Amino acid sequence: MSLIWSDATAQAELVRSGQATPGELLEAAITRIEALDGGLNAVIHRRFERARVEADAVDRDAPFAGVPMVLKDLICELEDEPFHEGMAYLRDLDYRAPADQGLARRFKQAGFVVVGKSNTPELGGIPTTEPLSHGPTRNPWDRGRTPGGSSGGSAAAVATGMVAVGHANDAGGSIRNPAARCGLVGLKPSRGRISQGPLYGDVFGGVVAELAVTRTVRDTAALLDVLSAPFPGDPIVAPRQTDRYVEAMQAPTGALRIGVWHGIPGGFGELHPEAIAAVDAGAELLSGLGHAVEEAHPHILERRLAAAVLGRIVMASTVWAIRRWEKLTGVPCRPEQLEPITRSYVQRAESLSAADLLDLFEQRDVLVRALAAWFEQHDVLVLATVAEPAPELGVLQAYEDADVGRALQANLPSLNLTSWVNLVGLPAISLPLHWTADGLPMGTQLVAPYGREDRLLALAARLEQARPWAHRHPDRFGG
Amino acid sequence: MSLIWSDATAQAELVRSGQATPGELLEAAITRIEALDGGLNAVIHRRFERARVEADAVDRDAPFAGVPMVLKDLICELEDEPFHEGMAYLRDLDYRAPADQGLARRFKQAGFVVVGKSNTPELGGIPTTEPLSHGPTRNPWDRGRTPGGSSGGSAAAVATGMVAVGHANDAGGSIRNPAARCGLVGLKPSRGRISQGPLYGDVFGGVVAELAVTRTVRDTAALLDVLSAPFPGDPIVAPRQTDRYVEAMQAPTGALRIGVWHGIPGGFGELHPEAIAAVDAGAELLSGLGHAVEEAHPHILERRLAAAVLGRIVMASTVWAIRRWEKLTGVPCRPEQLEPITRSYVQRAESLSAADLLDLFEQRDVLVRALAAWFEQHDVLVLATVAEPAPELGVLQAYEDADVGRALQANLPSLNLTSWVNLVGLPAISLPLHWTADGLPMGTQLVAPYGREDRLLALAARLEQARPWAHRHPDRFGG
Repeated sequence: MSLIWSDATAQAELVRSGQATPGELLEAAITRIEALDGGLNAVIHRRFERARVEADAVDRDAPFAGVPMVLKDLICELEDEPFHEGMAYLRDLDYRAPADQGLARRFKQAGFVVVGKSNTPELGGIPTTEPLSHGPTRNPWDRGRTPGGSSGGSAAAVATGMVAVGHANDAGGSIRNPAARCGLVGLKPSRGRISQGPLYGDVFGGVVAELAVTRTVRDTAALLDVLSAPFPGDPIVAPRQTDRYVEAMQAPTGALRIGVWHGIPGGFGELHPEAIAAVDAGAELLSGLGHAVEEAHPHILERRLAAAVLGRIVMASTVWAIRRWEKLTGVPCRPEQLEPITRSYVQRAESLSAADLLDLFEQRDVLVRALAAWFEQHDVLVLATVAEPAPELGVLQAYEDADVGRALQANLPSLNLTSWVNLVGLPAISLPLHWTADGLPMGTQLVAPYGREDRLLALAARLEQARPWAHRHPDRFGG
Repeated sequence: MSLIWSDATAQAELVRSGQATPGELLEAAITRIEALDGGLNAVIHRRFERARVEADAVDRDAPFAGVPMVLKDLICELEDEPFHEGMAYLRDLDYRAPADQGLARRFKQAGFVVVGKSNTPELGGIPTTEPLSHGPTRNPWDRGRTPGGSSGGSAAAVATGMVAVGHANDAGGSIRNPAARCGLVGLKPSRGRISQGPLYGDVFGGVVAELAVTRTVRDTAALLDVLSAPFPGDPIVAPRQTDRYVEAMQAPTGALRIGVWHGIPGGFGELHPEAIAAVDAGAELLSGLGHAVEEAHPHILERRLAAAVLGRIVMASTVWAIRRWEKLTGVPCRPEQLEPITRSYVQRAESLSAADLLDLFEQRDVLVRALAAWFEQHDVLVLATVAEPAPELGVLQAYEDADVGRALQANLPSLNLTSWVNLVGLPAISLPLHWTADGLPMGTQLVAPYGREDRLLALAARLEQARPWAHRHPDRFGG
C-alpha cells in the first residue's frame, strides 16, 4: 500500500518501525495537497513551514507520532493560526486564534502534525461546504457536486489521500454527511464524549460533537482513545464501556436486535433509491453477520419535533456565536457580512425568548426519554445518512436572500436523517457500504444507545471486513 | 428515644424488628401533625386516610417500610393529590397531579408512607416559605421568624418531629437554607444525581437538585442510596464513587485539604457574627479531626457573576414553568394571580432572548471550569449557609409590588451563599453546628467537587459525632 493511502494507524507504525520519518510523511502530504488541492479547495490555510518544524520535534513515543492531519476551521482553535469559522467577517479581520483549544492540543499530544486548516461553511450552519468567504470545496468523486458538510474540507482531503485524518465536528450531521458524500467513516460520538474545554462547556446547547473523518474504522477507534478523556469541569461526561476502543472494536458483540428504517425522520419526503440501497446494504450485511434485523424505528421520530427543535437551537446558537465573536474581537459584525442563510437564522432567532429555549430543551428531554425506551428493546438503529446522492454545487447554498427558502428546503431531507441524533446526544456512525451506479459513495448510518460507541465500532469493523471500501478511490485521485 | 424523635433509619428498624407497625408510626405522625401544625402551617395537604391504606399495604421488605414522610408541593407530583407549587393559580383550579413523578414513586417503593404535602413559596422562587396561596410556615425555633425556604414546610415538619424525612428540592439553596434555619441536615446533591424523570429532563436549566431534609446524617445517606439510580434517558448522570452511601459515610477520608471562607459570594455584604461563628465551628471541628484547614476560597466567586447568571436562569425558568402549566391546564395564568416577586421575575425575563440564555450557560461553563481547577488543590470548601439568623416573617417576602425591591435585597446575602453551588452543579451540605445566643440554629455549609457526596457525608458523620445536634429540639415542640 502506498504511503498516501495508508491509514493513520499504518503511518504511525511506519514511523515506529523506522520505515518512514515524520518528515517523509509530512512531505508526502504537502506534495499531495499542492498537487490536488487547486482543484478541490479542501485546505484553506496551509501551514507547511510550521508543520515541518513540528514534525522534526515530534514526540516519537506519541501514538500517532508524525502522522499528518488537517484541522477543520471551526470551534477547534489552533494558536496563532487563521481562524475564520467560514465567516467573511473573521476573514476580513484576519483573525488568529490566541490559544489552542484543548482538542487541538490533544491531537498534537497524540503526535499528529497539523499540515493545514480545512474548509467549512459559515459557522458550520449547512450540510455543504460552500462558504462565500473561502469558496466551495468540491467532491473528489464528482467535482461538480458538494462534498457534503459542514466538514467537507476535511472529507475531501481524506478521500483524496492528502491526509488520513481530518478533524471534524457535527451539530446536525456535519461529520456523518461529508463522510457519506466522500466514501469515509464518520463517527459522531455521544454528547459529552469529547470535551469542548477549555474554550467551551456545552457549545450550541449540547448538540455539537467533535471527532474526525477517516478511511478506516480502526483509525476512528484509535482517535477516540487518544481524544476522549474529560477535562476538569466538563458539564457532561458520557459513560463509557471501555478504556480502549481499539480493543472494544474487536470484541464480540453477540447477536444484536437491529431495527432498520427506510424513512426520513419528520416525514421530509422519501429516500432516493440509491439511499434505500445503502440502508439495504447495511441491513443485509448485518443480517449475514447473524444479527436479528427487522423493520423497526422509534415512531416519535416521524413527527416534525426533532427537526424543528434542533433547528431553533441552532438558530439561537448562531446568534450567540456571532455575539461571542463581536465581544472577543471588539468589532461589530454587520448583517451584510453574513451569508444569506446565516442572516435568515439570525432573523428567525430574534423572536426566540429564553423561556422558548427552555421549552425547546424540555421537548428535547422528552424525545431523549422516548428514544431511551426504544433502545431498551433494540441495540442499534440503521437508517440512511443522506437522502439522495450528492447534489450539484450551489443547490444546498444560497447566494442571494431570495434563494434561502429554496436552499433550506433542499437541505431538509438529508439534514433530518442526521440532526435528530445531535438533538438527543446519541452516538452514530456513517459507513460507505454502497456506491451509486454513477460511482458516488452513499452512507449507511448506525445509531446506538447513549455511550455505546463501542458497539458501533465493533459492528463497523465487521461491516468493513465484510464489504471493504478503503481500496476505493475517486478516479482522478487514485493510485 | 421516643418514636417521634427517632430518625427514619431507627423507625425502619423498629418495624423490621417487630417493635412497631407501620400503622403505629403513621398514627404517631398524624397525632403530631394534628397537635402542632395549626401553629406552624408546614403540612398544607393532609392525606391521612390514604396514608392509612398505604401503611397497611406497605411492602415489609422495603428498606423504609412504613416510615412516614412529607412530600414538598413542588416538582415532585403525587398522583391524584393536590399540586399547587405555591401558586394561587393552581390552587384556584384545584389542580391535581395526573400521575406520580419518578421520585415520588421511588419514595414509595422504598417503603415511605406520604402523610401529607408540605408548604412551598410560589414556584420555589425565594428562600422563605410564605406563599400568598397557603400562608406562611413558621419557624419552630421562633414562630415569628421564617423557617427558610423554599423547603420550609418540610423543614418545620422534620424539626418538630412530625416526620423524620421531608422531601425537599433546591434551585438556589432551598434544601440547605431551611435546613440551616431549622437545625437540620440538608444535602443538595450533584447535578444529575437524582433523576427528574420521567416528567422532566434537566429542569430549570439544570440548577434544581432533589433530596430531603433530615435530622441525621445517616438518614440523608440512606435516602441517597434508595433514590439515586438514574432513569433511562436522563440527560446528565453524575459520576459516583460508591454504590452505598451509608457505607461511604463510615469510610475513612484521610486528611483533607479544606478551604474556609468567611465571606459572601458576589460581595453581598458581610456575615453576621453568628454566621461567622457557624463557619468557625465547622473549621475548628474539622481541624480537630485532623484535616488541613486554611483560609482559602475560589476568588472568582467574589465577582457578581454567579448570582447574576443564576438569577436570570431562574427568571427565564419561571416564565417557562408558568407557560408549561398554562399548556397542561389549558387555562391562562393572569398576572394578578402571581405574587409580586414572581411577577417581577416574569417581567425581567421578558427581555431575555434565547441567545442571552446560551450566553448565561456559557458563563456558567466558565465558572464550572474555574471551580474544578480550585478543587484540584482543595478537597472541600467550608462557608456559611445563611448570612444571618432567620429574619422575621414578612422580611423576605413582598406582599405589594412596591415591596419587591426591598424583599429581594433582603434575600440576597443568604441566597448568594448557596445559589452559586446550584449554578455549577456541585454537591453541598448544611449542618447545624452552631446555635445563636438566642437559641436559633445556624448552618455551616460544606461544598465538595462534582460527584463527591460520599466525601461530604463522611465528613458530616464525623462532625455529627463530634458535636451532636439531634437531641436539640425547639422548646415548645420538645420531649
